[in-house]
Amino acid sequence: MASSTREVLHFPATQSKLIDPYLPFPSKNEKPYVTLTFATSLDSNLSLAPGVQTHLSGPESKAMTHYLRSQHDAILIGVGTAVADDPSLNCRIEGAGGYGGEGLTGQPRPIVLDPRGRWEINEKTKCIALAREKKGKAPWLVMCQPCKKEVRDLLESVGGQVLVVEPVVDDKPSRIPWHKLVETLAGEGIQSIMIEGGGSVINDLLSPQYFGLVDSVIVTIAPTWLGKGGVQVCPEERIEGETRVPVARLKGVKWVPLGEDVVLCGRPIVSPT
Amino acid sequence: MASSTREVLHFPATQSKLIDPYLPFPSKNEKPYVTLTFATSLDSNLSLAPGVQTHLSGPESKAMTHYLRSQHDAILIGVGTAVADDPSLNCRIEGAGGYGGEGLTGQPRPIVLDPRGRWEINEKTKCIALAREKKGKAPWLVMCQPCKKEVRDLLESVGGQVLVVEPVVDDKPSRIPWHKLVETLAGEGIQSIMIEGGGSVINDLLSPQYFGLVDSVIVTIAPTWLGKGGVQVCPEERIEGETRVPVARLKGVKWVPLGEDVVLCGRPIVSPT
Repeated sequence: MASSTREVLHFPATQSKLIDPYLPFPSKNEKPYVTLTFATSLDSNLSLAPGVQTHLSGPESKAMTHYLRSQHDAILIGVGTAVADDPSLNCRIEGAGGYGGEGLTGQPRPIVLDPRGRWEINEKTKCIALAREKKGKAPWLVMCQPCKKEVRDLLESVGGQVLVVEPVVDDKPSRIPWHKLVETLAGEGIQSIMIEGGGSVINDLLSPQYFGLVDSVIVTIAPTWLGKGGVQVCPEERIEGETRVPVARLKGVKWVPLGEDVVLCGRPIVSPT
Repeated sequence: MASSTREVLHFPATQSKLIDPYLPFPSKNEKPYVTLTFATSLDSNLSLAPGVQTHLSGPESKAMTHYLRSQHDAILIGVGTAVADDPSLNCRIEGAGGYGGEGLTGQPRPIVLDPRGRWEINEKTKCIALAREKKGKAPWLVMCQPCKKEVRDLLESVGGQVLVVEPVVDDKPSRIPWHKLVETLAGEGIQSIMIEGGGSVINDLLSPQYFGLVDSVIVTIAPTWLGKGGVQVCPEERIEGETRVPVARLKGVKWVPLGEDVVLCGRPIVSPT
């Protein structure tokens, strides 16, 4: 287990106490607590180009991300990120299951949103391999159409599952029916979800139609500009009457410097639309 | 003078001392000290749309901008911003000339970059009117072609001037020859320049070709997303070999929360290109 020990991350309590007010708390709400979190450059890019994994933030921010994962029942990404990055989607914070802790304590459920079945997985896919090694929970796949048998079989062999969510009829075919999705996950016992990206998932959730589903937003910003052609967080324009207005704004804002980066914590201002 | 008294801004020393290390200091350098400063949304927009003035940052950030202006010999903007915003381009910090101070103490020289002569001015143009009222210095206009007589006459009537800088021959015609420009301003006795925008000026200066001219960068970020179609800070992509790489990065970074916004201070990392 030497290799896993090397990977163990530590996020100091002096930092975590600043961020804790924005994390899920026990409640009797039926809607799961949703945290939207991602890291961008100053020019709001998640990566240098589509499909190119880009290491933006420093080691302190990485430790924070794993701390956040330990505080949520599930972490959720879009299929584009799953294909581009082959992410581990587990929690490597000190004390989490497989990283000093018992069983799968503190390991979140990885959820991949793949409405049209683009994700191809095999035994080497990181989150599948980690589930076999008991260093992470088995992933769930959310689709809007039936799943290929080989994908389903492999997922189920490590303890995962496929959830089919009906698309909203009048929606764009590629759109995720976010309200139904959150409801479905609640039905599966998920009480808190950390949504990590990528670009289209984030831009979707920043839109007035879905921003009300989000309880808190945690953005890490690195002091660099990636330039044009990157994958950008920049939601569709919002027009009221005939006037362009800001798409989204946060309230209850806190800025926490972390290494060379800053972490912005806030809560959505939800306006009637 | 009641109206001017109402406009007087105060920037507390507890804040200014955090930012002072990034401001011009007396030196024997021939090159003026250049500070690049601007305010964006989280999606790196300066405004909702071209030509639309957008109030992004809070009152604390506004006071900071005027404090920064008091610490520079000149403030410089592109003609697009001059046309869109009709900015005052003076300093309204407590104690500056016209705002409690004598003469034009602490008032920076407004400089408008207008290579092709787009700026139309009259007696109501704010920086012209403020120069007449002795609440700001008269603007200088930098062009790459001869200036219309009526523009020159009006500028000179308030004590301003037109500077013609030859375009670099192999450059795009609309490009500002930044090195020559900074040299020309140094020849006019300007030892520090605060460059405030707009989008094309900022993106130009973030490019590897010009980033070395910049001594410090001060960016205010507001916790809002403006959405697609805005005027964005996002420089041209940078390719080394056949690989996309980040365009620019800062070192010696400090993040200063200011009201709901954050202020990022840093210095360019200049790499050989």
